[in-house]
Amino acid sequence: MNGLHLIADLHDCRCPPAHLLDAAALESFCVASCERHGLTVVGRLFHSFTDAQQQPAGVTGAVVLAESHLALHTWPELRGVTLDVYVCNYSADNSARARSLFAEVIASFAATHAETKEVARGHLSSAVSGD
Amino acid sequence: MNGLHLIADLHDCRCPPAHLLDAAALESFCVASCERHGLTVVGRLFHSFTDAQQQPAGVTGAVVLAESHLALHTWPELRGVTLDVYVCNYSADNSARARSLFAEVIASFAATHAETKEVARGHLSSAVSGD
Repeated sequence: MNGLHLIADLHDCRCPPAHLLDAAALESFCVASCERHGLTVVGRLFHSFTDAQQQPAGVTGAVVLAESHLALHTWPELRGVTLDVYVCNYSADNSARARSLFAEVIASFAATHAETKEVARGHLSSAVSGD
Repeated sequence: MNGLHLIADLHDCRCPPAHLLDAAALESFCVASCERHGLTVVGRLFHSFTDAQQQPAGVTGAVVLAESHLALHTWPELRGVTLDVYVCNYSADNSARARSLFAEVIASFAATHAETKEVARGHLSSAVSGD
């Protein structure tokens, strides 16, 4: 049950606005990225929110992995994103895959400021470290 | 973008085994629990893993919320569960709802040992505290 949970809060993202607004495109990107980094996608669920004028207003999404999950939420009006990549290492050391996936997804948003953390999961007396 | 992310690693769960193995039942429980605590379910995706003998071997699931997400993974052979409840407080203070949902889901597993953490999300220079 031991695993690695990577957390990022991304501020002032300079990526194209569509990358914060287009649920289908973001879903495709996240799924392809997971697969590219050797993780096993067992499902995906991305939802687009709309504002009072029925305009796209943000995306929330989850990619369910055999190795656990990726979750992502965008705030286009704030140019912000929150990201979680959690992999368990029970059957293989997926930490390197998780870190490279995490880095790739973060890079795609071109955040001016990124706050990242790591949480060791599944251990008794888990350690938490901040970056 | 400010939010509260609650994390739990549950060990030696004494709940009925079905609560760790039955993806459909666990999905129904999690969705109902989210709704009962005033959160808005916009989607759900639960997946059952099978072992070499095609027997149920664990569940991984995500409930996508308007307020962010719940994610859960079970390890029946270890009687273990990892749980994440993440809500953003951007439009309402969802912290109380998140905490009561988190407590209810944790209680359902009857863990002998539970490690919990809270992570403040979306802030610049986020604080992390361990329980």
